[in-house]
Parts: sequence; structure tokens; C-alpha cells
Amino acid sequence: MSRSPGRKKENHKISRELFVLTYGALVAQLCKDYEKDEDVNACLDSMGYSIGIRLIDDFLARSAVKKCRSYSETADVIAQVAFKMYLGVTPSVSCSSATGNEFSLILDKNPLVDFVEELPAERASLCYCNLLCGVIRGALEMVHLAAEVSFLQDRLKGDAVTEIGITFLRKPEDRKHRRN
Amino acid sequence: MSRSPGRKKENHKISRELFVLTYGALVAQLCKDYEKDEDVNACLDSMGYSIGIRLIDDFLARSAVKKCRSYSETADVIAQVAFKMYLGVTPSVSCSSATGNEFSLILDKNPLVDFVEELPAERASLCYCNLLCGVIRGALEMVHLAAEVSFLQDRLKGDAVTEIGITFLRKPEDRKHRRN
Repeated sequence: MSRSPGRKKENHKISRELFVLTYGALVAQLCKDYEKDEDVNACLDSMGYSIGIRLIDDFLARSAVKKCRSYSETADVIAQVAFKMYLGVTPSVSCSSATGNEFSLILDKNPLVDFVEELPAERASLCYCNLLCGVIRGALEMVHLAAEVSFLQDRLKGDAVTEIGITFLRKPEDRKHRRN
Repeated sequence: MSRSPGRKKENHKISRELFVLTYGALVAQLCKDYEKDEDVNACLDSMGYSIGIRLIDDFLARSAVKKCRSYSETADVIAQVAFKMYLGVTPSVSCSSATGNEFSLILDKNPLVDFVEELPAERASLCYCNLLCGVIRGALEMVHLAAEVSFLQDRLKGDAVTEIGITFLRKPEDRKHRRN
């Protein structure tokens, strides 16, 4: 009595709900492990970094994105290709500095917090989705772009939107490659 | 300088790679937290259970599956609808007992272990994907089906396939509902 279903080519997608709940279990475990929100945030960032440095190969292979010629283009690729591919959402991008190295990814809706109502009062400093910052930072580092990535606004903390800030750290040799 | 992409209806899918790596981070964290594999396994099962009892509502709403009339039908729904919906794979199902309450879900390929080569020697008893067992157990309990769920074979441990065993625990009142 064995029933083997017809095999189709398996795709690369899974349900967001399962991911969101699994991510919630991870954050809850870290909250058990660390008393201070800052330590949880640092741990999520560090885990994300480890994920980012592995995920970049998958991203480059599947997206077939060419080398970006400006920070602006890089920010657009993160928002429109990477977020779309990995989280199924597309943040809007804004450049938040005259010097052209600071960008914001603005999410009207954060797919990672579907089942989270609000942070408990004793976890007011928790950056619940800090893993994402680490992922972006790790992935950028693997394409030789040093960046600081952090949450600037968070709907979980009562802000109107969720905003991830990316500051590309300039290196002297960047200047000759930079456009505009 | 703000670019807002055209919004499409957002879907419920995310990239498997991100999930797999995030799940790996969760297991790694638990391996840091608990010395004994058995404790890690129990924790994954318990986390999965908490996920399962929440995921079942999403499943029933999205699948529009009707009440199953037999354990066999239930096992088929888990494999062909739930696994497909949440993990993008469809295990084959086999009934492994004459009494009709023990089933195996057999995965040629386990989508959760894409980036895992093999378990480290000191973690030989780890059931890496034990979260899945908890999810199934929790979800079944919410539709009033008590079950024991565990890994019977695991490719990570050198077995030819990955096999999840589900034993439905009979209750006296089951008999009148049971088919065959």
C-alpha cells in the first residue's frame, strides 16, 4: 500500500507562514537565552550575517544580476530583486543622504511579523527582525561592499512603516568606480 | 529621490533557501544551549508543536480540505496538500501496519537540509528536522487527532531516505468513525 505521487520539478518556494512561525520560535529562544535585548539583537545580526555570506551565491546564481555600478543601483537590486526573491515583498527605496551612500528600504508591510501583535513591554529594545540586517550586511560584504545595516523605524514599535537603513562605507578605491 | 515599485498582490511564498538557513541557525543555537541531543530534539519538537497548533488554521483556510474520513486519507492530505503547501515537496505515503493507524511519509529529498552535509560526530543522535514532527503533531491535535510523530529514517544519518512515522493513537470513540 504505497502511493507515490507524480513528481513535478520542485520549486524553490515554501510557505511564508511556516517561515514566519519558525523565525518567531528562533527569536523566542534567543529571548530565553539572553536577558538583554541588545544581546538578542546582536545575536540575530550575527546569525543573519552567517546566512548572508552563504545566501549571496544562491542570489547571484538565480538572479543573474550583473555588477552594480552605483550604491543607488545596489540598493534597488536589494529591494526589487533580493527582497522579492527571498521574502516575496518589494520595499520602496529612498536615498537619505546628499552624499549618496545612505539608503532606506521602506516596508509598508513586514512579512516576518505576520503573527506578531506587538513586542512585550519588557522587550522594548528588541529589533525583532534584526536577522534581516545581518543577512544584507553579510551578502554585501561578499561582493566587497562594506555597509552598516540597521532598523531605523519599526511598525512593531509603533512607527508608521518599517525602515531598514543601509549606509555604504566608502573606501578610497571606491571613488573611481562610483557614478554621479 | 524615492522610487516606489508597482505593487502586485503579495503572495504567500518565500524562498526556501532563506528558510533553510534560518532553520539551520535555530538548530545551531539549540545545540549551543543544550548539551544533549535528546534535549535539542525535545525542544525542536516542542517548538514545532507550538507552530503546528497555529498553522492549522492557516492550513484549513487555504487548503479548503474537508474532514478526512480515515487515517489513510489524513496521511494523504498531510503529504499531498500540507507538505506541498508549506515545504513545496510531496512525500510518498505508505501504511506500515495491518491495523491501519501507522503511516510513513517518505521523502527522497528533505527540503530542510539543502545546506547540511552531515551531522557532526558528536551530534549523532540529533533529529535535525524534529521541528516537522512537532508541527504535524500539533496540527493533528487541533483537529482532534492524537498522534505520535517521529523520524524513522534520516538521510542525514546515512539512511537511503528520510522517513517520518505517524502513529494515530486510537480512542474508543474513533471506532464508529473509522472506515475499512
